[in-house]
Amino acid sequence: MNETTLKPNFESGVAGLLPTIAQDHKTGRVLMMAWMNEAAFQETMQTGWACYYSRSRRGLWRKGETSGHRQRLVKVQLDCDADCILLHIEQTGAACHEGYQSCFYRSVDRSMRVSIDEPRLADPETIYGNRASGQD
Amino acid sequence: MNETTLKPNFESGVAGLLPTIAQDHKTGRVLMMAWMNEAAFQETMQTGWACYYSRSRRGLWRKGETSGHRQRLVKVQLDCDADCILLHIEQTGAACHEGYQSCFYRSVDRSMRVSIDEPRLADPETIYGNRASGQD
Repeated sequence: MNETTLKPNFESGVAGLLPTIAQDHKTGRVLMMAWMNEAAFQETMQTGWACYYSRSRRGLWRKGETSGHRQRLVKVQLDCDADCILLHIEQTGAACHEGYQSCFYRSVDRSMRVSIDEPRLADPETIYGNRASGQD
Repeated sequence: MNETTLKPNFESGVAGLLPTIAQDHKTGRVLMMAWMNEAAFQETMQTGWACYYSRSRRGLWRKGETSGHRQRLVKVQLDCDADCILLHIEQTGAACHEGYQSCFYRSVDRSMRVSIDEPRLADPETIYGNRASGQD
C-alpha cells in the first residue's frame, strides 16, 4: 500500500451519507448504526466526539447533546471500499434512545420471535423529558 | 413489551435495502457491512448462512459461494427502529474480498493518515482467480 492518507468516499454514499457503526472500544459491543455526511465526519474527527447526520431532522446530530449520553472517539476504521465507517467509542450512559445500552437490544429467532436481551439502563422519559421521539 | 414477533422494516430502507452488520460471534470483531433486501433476509434465516443483496450485481449474494468463505449464522439482532440488522456469525476464512479477516482492516487518525491494522489472511487472486473485483 502506497497511500498515506484515506478519506471516506461520501460520493458513493446514499445521497452523500455513509453508514456508520459505533462499537464499544472495550467490550466490542455494537451499540448503534447511524449516518454521516462529510460535515459530520469532519466534526467527529476534529472534536473527538461522535457527530452524525440525522435524516429525520436533516442536520448534524451531536450525539448526547440533549441526554449527555455522548460518545468519545477512540479509533476510526474504514472498510475496504471506504464507504462504511466504524467508530470505536467510549459510551456514556445509553446509546439507544429507548434507554438501552445498545440499539441492538433485541434478538429474533428463525420464527421471528423476539426476545429482549438486556435491561434498560435508563427511562427514556427521564433522559429526554416528554419528547415523543427522543433520538439524540 | 407485548410484541412476540418482530420483522425488519424493509419499507423504511434505502430502496428496500437495510444495512446489515456482520460481527464475529466470539471475538466481537466487526467484519463487514453489507445490504439485505427481504429475500436475502429470508434466505439467511431459513438456511442459517449469510446471504446479502449485491447492489453492483443486483441480485442475491450468497456470501462465500465462490470463495468458500461463508458465514454461519449464530444470532440475529435488530435495532430499535428495526431498520438495521446485526448478524452474529462464525466466519470461515476472510470476510473481506481483499483477503483480510475484516473489511475494517485500516485505521485513520485525525490527519486522515492511514495504517493497516492486520496482515492479510489470503491472497485475493488465490481466493477468486483472475477476477478483477472479487466481491463475494
